[in-house]
Amino acid sequence: MASRTPDKEAVSELTTARLSVYLRSLTYLESIGKKTVSSHELAERFHLNSAQIRKDLACFGEFGTRGVGYDVCTLKKELVRELGIDRTRNIVIIGAGNLGMALADYHGFNSNGFHIAALLDNDGEKIGRTSRSGIPVIDASRTEKVVRENNVEIAIIAVNPEAAQSVYDGLVHAGVVAVLNFAPIQLRLTSGVKVRNVDLRINLESLSYHLKNVEDGVA
Amino acid sequence: MASRTPDKEAVSELTTARLSVYLRSLTYLESIGKKTVSSHELAERFHLNSAQIRKDLACFGEFGTRGVGYDVCTLKKELVRELGIDRTRNIVIIGAGNLGMALADYHGFNSNGFHIAALLDNDGEKIGRTSRSGIPVIDASRTEKVVRENNVEIAIIAVNPEAAQSVYDGLVHAGVVAVLNFAPIQLRLTSGVKVRNVDLRINLESLSYHLKNVEDGVA
Repeated sequence: MASRTPDKEAVSELTTARLSVYLRSLTYLESIGKKTVSSHELAERFHLNSAQIRKDLACFGEFGTRGVGYDVCTLKKELVRELGIDRTRNIVIIGAGNLGMALADYHGFNSNGFHIAALLDNDGEKIGRTSRSGIPVIDASRTEKVVRENNVEIAIIAVNPEAAQSVYDGLVHAGVVAVLNFAPIQLRLTSGVKVRNVDLRINLESLSYHLKNVEDGVA
Repeated sequence: MASRTPDKEAVSELTTARLSVYLRSLTYLESIGKKTVSSHELAERFHLNSAQIRKDLACFGEFGTRGVGYDVCTLKKELVRELGIDRTRNIVIIGAGNLGMALADYHGFNSNGFHIAALLDNDGEKIGRTSRSGIPVIDASRTEKVVRENNVEIAIIAVNPEAAQSVYDGLVHAGVVAVLNFAPIQLRLTSGVKVRNVDLRINLESLSYHLKNVEDGVA
């Protein structure tokens, strides 16, 4: 059935998002010197669901010891491995406008498994500059060279919607295998290249929904 | 139980995200002149799950007619009402750096139910300027005045993590009731003020997880 694959994909994205949250929680616990943690404690501390935690982590082998909990350090290492960030994945950002520059300097986009090799832009005024954290802005005509020389796997599209499709096609041609798309258009996709569309407005609509429920006396 | 509330909240956030996706789908269908659509067709066109669609939309009253489907225009209006964006909610953005500027000009942040009243910053070089789309940058010392005069309900925090807590406290004092936080810290929260933390790294980790599964021959 045509509806199977996207459904499975949606589920997997929700699971991945939870794994990311667990990893953040464990990183914090490690930083304050905690050695073990129970699923119940993880749930309480970080407003998660303990049954869901046990279910999610069961897929990744048995780390929990009944009555003691998980070994923080071991579980963290396992999650890092599961998320595929035990090796470094190279990234380019296309578009060195405000959004591209903000993403180049965004905490966590250039550390712990991710390395931003370059920003790419076709604006002569921007080429040759760097972001605040030192990421160079390179001529977009050199995209293929930059991708190949740096073994870039992931590209972030931060250009206007009119330019996004041709940027995407160029990235696929250059050998990129995963794309994070911030442009508000539905890209025509190439098989074998994973795309994740980011729509930040959904966050505002979620806040609005909450405010409406407060107004209606539901929340 | 302490774990109940956040769990319910997490579920409600996922539901809200789907409502947002349905709204986008219906807006598109309306733009191409479609009058009715079945849950099956919605699912096929937009890679959604038809059973989930029927379940989600059942909560909002019966709009579907067996064999015909939903009236696109009616359902869209209902979703707009449910998401609380049938009225305009005013927003301020704190921090006029690259991120704040990108968000001020972000498609969908200043339309259809949302209005960005101002950017606020304490950098004298930025005060008095405007974003590309014309949002003014105002002195952050005037935050309370701006919030009250513009009936601002939602604030977007786009400052560095060191400044985020005091910015948050000031916004709460000024009367803001919902916050979208882009700063990578766990804010100490005030009861009655809804906070949604945005962590963009989760999107990269999701792509990495996919790439790892491809490497392992799972995907």
